[in-house]
Amino acid sequence: MPKLSSKLVIPVRSMNEERAKAKFNIRELTFLLDGDEKATELKERIMLDLERDPLFKMHDIHDLTKPQIRERTLEKYRSLLHYLQSESVDNFKKRMEVVSMVDPGFWTRFGVHYGLFVGALQSNATPGQLGYWFEKGALGMSNFLGCFAMTEIGHGSNVPGLETTATFDEAADQFVIHTPTLTATKWWIGGAAHSATHASVFAQLIVKGKRYGTKCFVVPLRDTKTFNILPGINIGDIGKKMGRDGIDNGYIQFTNVRIPRGYMLQKHTKVSRHGEVKEPKLQQLTYGALLQGRVAMVVDSGNVSKKALTIAIRYAAVRRQFAGSKSGGIETKLLDYPIHQRRLMPLLAQTFAMLFTGTEMTLMYNNMMTRLDSAKEGDPDLDQVVEALKETHSTSAGLKAFCTWNCLSTIEQCRQSCGGHGYSAYTGLAAMYQDFAVQCTWEGDNTILTLQAGRYLISSYREAAKGKKLAPGVGYLNHLDTLIGKRCPATSPQDILDYNVLVEAWQVICANVVKNAALEFEACIARGLSADDAYEECSQSRLYAAKLHSYGYLFQRFVDGVSKLQGNIAVVLREVCLLYGLYAIEDNAGAFLQYEYFSPTQIEFVRSQVNVLCKAVRDQAIPLVDAFNLSDYVINSPLGCKDGNVYVN
Amino acid sequence: MPKLSSKLVIPVRSMNEERAKAKFNIRELTFLLDGDEKATELKERIMLDLERDPLFKMHDIHDLTKPQIRERTLEKYRSLLHYLQSESVDNFKKRMEVVSMVDPGFWTRFGVHYGLFVGALQSNATPGQLGYWFEKGALGMSNFLGCFAMTEIGHGSNVPGLETTATFDEAADQFVIHTPTLTATKWWIGGAAHSATHASVFAQLIVKGKRYGTKCFVVPLRDTKTFNILPGINIGDIGKKMGRDGIDNGYIQFTNVRIPRGYMLQKHTKVSRHGEVKEPKLQQLTYGALLQGRVAMVVDSGNVSKKALTIAIRYAAVRRQFAGSKSGGIETKLLDYPIHQRRLMPLLAQTFAMLFTGTEMTLMYNNMMTRLDSAKEGDPDLDQVVEALKETHSTSAGLKAFCTWNCLSTIEQCRQSCGGHGYSAYTGLAAMYQDFAVQCTWEGDNTILTLQAGRYLISSYREAAKGKKLAPGVGYLNHLDTLIGKRCPATSPQDILDYNVLVEAWQVICANVVKNAALEFEACIARGLSADDAYEECSQSRLYAAKLHSYGYLFQRFVDGVSKLQGNIAVVLREVCLLYGLYAIEDNAGAFLQYEYFSPTQIEFVRSQVNVLCKAVRDQAIPLVDAFNLSDYVINSPLGCKDGNVYVN
Repeated sequence: MPKLSSKLVIPVRSMNEERAKAKFNIRELTFLLDGDEKATELKERIMLDLERDPLFKMHDIHDLTKPQIRERTLEKYRSLLHYLQSESVDNFKKRMEVVSMVDPGFWTRFGVHYGLFVGALQSNATPGQLGYWFEKGALGMSNFLGCFAMTEIGHGSNVPGLETTATFDEAADQFVIHTPTLTATKWWIGGAAHSATHASVFAQLIVKGKRYGTKCFVVPLRDTKTFNILPGINIGDIGKKMGRDGIDNGYIQFTNVRIPRGYMLQKHTKVSRHGEVKEPKLQQLTYGALLQGRVAMVVDSGNVSKKALTIAIRYAAVRRQFAGSKSGGIETKLLDYPIHQRRLMPLLAQTFAMLFTGTEMTLMYNNMMTRLDSAKEGDPDLDQVVEALKETHSTSAGLKAFCTWNCLSTIEQCRQSCGGHGYSAYTGLAAMYQDFAVQCTWEGDNTILTLQAGRYLISSYREAAKGKKLAPGVGYLNHLDTLIGKRCPATSPQDILDYNVLVEAWQVICANVVKNAALEFEACIARGLSADDAYEECSQSRLYAAKLHSYGYLFQRFVDGVSKLQGNIAVVLREVCLLYGLYAIEDNAGAFLQYEYFSPTQIEFVRSQVNVLCKAVRDQAIPLVDAFNLSDYVINSPLGCKDGNVYVN
Repeated sequence: MPKLSSKLVIPVRSMNEERAKAKFNIRELTFLLDGDEKATELKERIMLDLERDPLFKMHDIHDLTKPQIRERTLEKYRSLLHYLQSESVDNFKKRMEVVSMVDPGFWTRFGVHYGLFVGALQSNATPGQLGYWFEKGALGMSNFLGCFAMTEIGHGSNVPGLETTATFDEAADQFVIHTPTLTATKWWIGGAAHSATHASVFAQLIVKGKRYGTKCFVVPLRDTKTFNILPGINIGDIGKKMGRDGIDNGYIQFTNVRIPRGYMLQKHTKVSRHGEVKEPKLQQLTYGALLQGRVAMVVDSGNVSKKALTIAIRYAAVRRQFAGSKSGGIETKLLDYPIHQRRLMPLLAQTFAMLFTGTEMTLMYNNMMTRLDSAKEGDPDLDQVVEALKETHSTSAGLKAFCTWNCLSTIEQCRQSCGGHGYSAYTGLAAMYQDFAVQCTWEGDNTILTLQAGRYLISSYREAAKGKKLAPGVGYLNHLDTLIGKRCPATSPQDILDYNVLVEAWQVICANVVKNAALEFEACIARGLSADDAYEECSQSRLYAAKLHSYGYLFQRFVDGVSKLQGNIAVVLREVCLLYGLYAIEDNAGAFLQYEYFSPTQIEFVRSQVNVLCKAVRDQAIPLVDAFNLSDYVINSPLGCKDGNVYVN
């Protein structure tokens, strides 16, 4: 047998060496990222709970077949139900956040009920209806499991175009739920294939022959005792997917299925005993709840990137390749190669940007929802509330899209940076990619969301031109006069290492690309196109504007977050923040040069400072990923273990 | 049960409508892409052979477990052996090309023997040794299966750093193959876990205490009759991977395994009975064979992109979403959305660029190898041959990297463009991604290859500065005087729709980025760094130069190819070619603006012409993917079927 080489102790030594470089208190940064010390302790307790729960063992997950994975997923329910019934809602939410990093497939299966089904109840049911369903078991999940039946095989992101009908039968005081065509088949419904007892079904409300658009109905699917599928309901399994095989996606067809009138969720639109339909005055207020999922996905993109980067950066700190002339024989650490720093450090910076932005967005969302819940017609600040809602709606659309794309790309780049090992299932990055990929499609296809964000930017531009004061996130469009045509005064590479310069750079460029898209839109209108067609025509410019706006927004939130800090953490994160801003500029150099904020010489300053900052951040890279504070159990990859002992692991 | 909607006939009608738009003879384009009519017919016969071979059924592949897949893979061997033994080498190569598109996992398993093991024999064995191993069964594969043991767990792309030793024992006239450390374990070896009888092992040659670098040895692993593992050999299974589960990757450790001296392959370096080592005079000539794999991967990137785009574009031609105001109620085809055109048409153009380049590279490679095989010291044109070899070596390194990256990204973008269906295993794009991803790592990690390509560009620049005439692919570096500082004279969007303008644009920008990297390198040298360290320091600039050079090279080969054509095909492909050139410029706008070949106004011309060309190419998109001529069996996705009947399929 080969002897244990002395080389095997080098990895552990390398890791300790890197850890010793910390210029800041790692624990303090963990508290900051988690919220506070208590939150960190709670998270640590949850990670331990899961690690010692035999139902949550994860080390063998890559070798299970689809049926085995699904079975284990179902077992985990029992474990989580225990906590659901015994701990506070806030603690349970934190638990779910950890679960989403440990086992995204299971998280989805649980989240379909807990997030989507219960979420649909919360946003669409009257208080009385909510109480009714909670009593039926929707909260405690005793013999009750909900699924979320929105998507149809012929209709993805087009909710108004759904074909399933809900026709009011006044005589029976019932709704008749029906699938009129094959393309109306509910498709891709998580939990439907084998587990769900109830579905929140999105269908066209038809009363006395008149259509009132898509509303939400609760439809029982299976007998809660015998678990038999109910009459008129046809369910099938969608089978194997790219990832998340723990969740049993299925299809559902309804053949004249009758439900009581009260099973229509009537918080917004109401149908009376005799078929009078009362529609809400403030339609906009009905979609506030949609945003929750998007905000959660910004946070999730940050969290999953944390995990991927912990693996890739820890591996790069101990993996050595090719003997460098400086090292006198020992091969060089991957992390010491400038090109490897270039591969990973900007992604680390981007992850921090997403984490700071996620925290801020969550706060913004919670404040707004509290305000919305009490909103009444005639409130003096209602305009402002609606304005903030619109901004959050479109900003979160753009951020959901670009953060999930960024995270997916981060996972893949981390995977490739581990060389051949990245292709092995056991190093975890392959499954992470496969599980995460769906985030670019669900809760709104990314491309469609970016176009929504772009549409909002164009209309904001047009409103600003009419003198309207915009919400803060697009406030720069109120200052086009000073921004358009502005050039950077920097004369040396040092000059651009300045928040003011970079914030201005992003504002100038965003102002320009939004203006450009708006002018293109107006030219289409002038040519006689309808507004809808004009928006289609300029969709590439819309997407481009949304992209730069979203990156600028991420940078701004990151700057805001770091500016509040003090001490060594502030010093280190300032470099990370500058790296993000500059890297994102370099990556979109075309726009910055086209609108001449930066000259060709100044863009070289940007490039050279990205190199410098990559080196600086590289020195703190291990302490920074340590601050993510993910246990080896959560990481679940021999390449990412904290002690660096990769070859033995 | 839901009735069959009249909507279900719309997809088939839509597909026919699109097909009728063809402005060129589809069949003729197929002949062109395949080589000629005979090649197309052969390919069609092979596709049919495979389709009716029960061992090659593929429709249920996504539901098989890893052991089932491996078992089926082994069964397919029998089928292919039949052809290997009964048809010409050229026909069999074509068959393997089709197999690689149908079942990449199996193709790898077969390719490990046929491509890598036999390839290693062909490039490293003397004619006598080759005959010996062929007679032993290496050609007919009767009770003989080879694997390729290069990579070690601690050493990926660093071949000179491999640790396995091959020590000559003069008394016994044998080599002793040994794994001295854990990090020297041969890792990731395809076919080793369960099937291979022999391995071509790369190990450090040690004779009389002196090391001569890495050479290739044939080492028997298993008894060819009993299939028992031979003494001194320890083999294990690496298990589950991201994709290609058909191939049984394993690890191998050798404990003083003895082989006859003649099992060292001695085409280049020779070891005599008494331990005299004779090394080759022309070291460079030994690595010509390395290039075969890289060239094949450029071709493969084109082929796999064909398949992904056939699925995504056919689906986009029949999938309808949201009612457009122009269509009077019927929802709009995805393909009619400008943003969807923007997503797919540039990728289609890029695929053609890779296909034309692949054809040209294959020709170049074959000519060069013929020349190399007869090369002798003292040949008057030897310098020129070595120059061409160096160019092909580095150009193929850059192309391998960027084409595999492009293809992987094409698959993912096609997958996302199919919305939720893209996440289902049955639509095929998920597995295509998982199978293809490894191409970015094997046969040289992409990042390392781009750096090699960049290093060659810098050294070419420096040689040109000394007055040396360079090989054609980097010939523009002989014209820096006229290229640097040149600006585009275009004054209207029309002016840039010109091969001359675009070819010049690429040459000017490549000249600039290569010069920039070379100056950075020279500045490092001036600061006192060693050449190796200087190359590391400027690795980001090297990568950037290699990227633009590779894109420029792809465009140039595409222009060369299309320029030879006539008639309607030439008209249509000219638009595809211009789209590729302009899209690649838009995508790298920063460089074109930084070096001021295009002004900000001209870059807007580029953007607007990309929009125009996307629309133009969109009209021919279905005829163009039809010309790829992949049967429904090869496509193996309900979304990509030729008749467009997606919902029923």
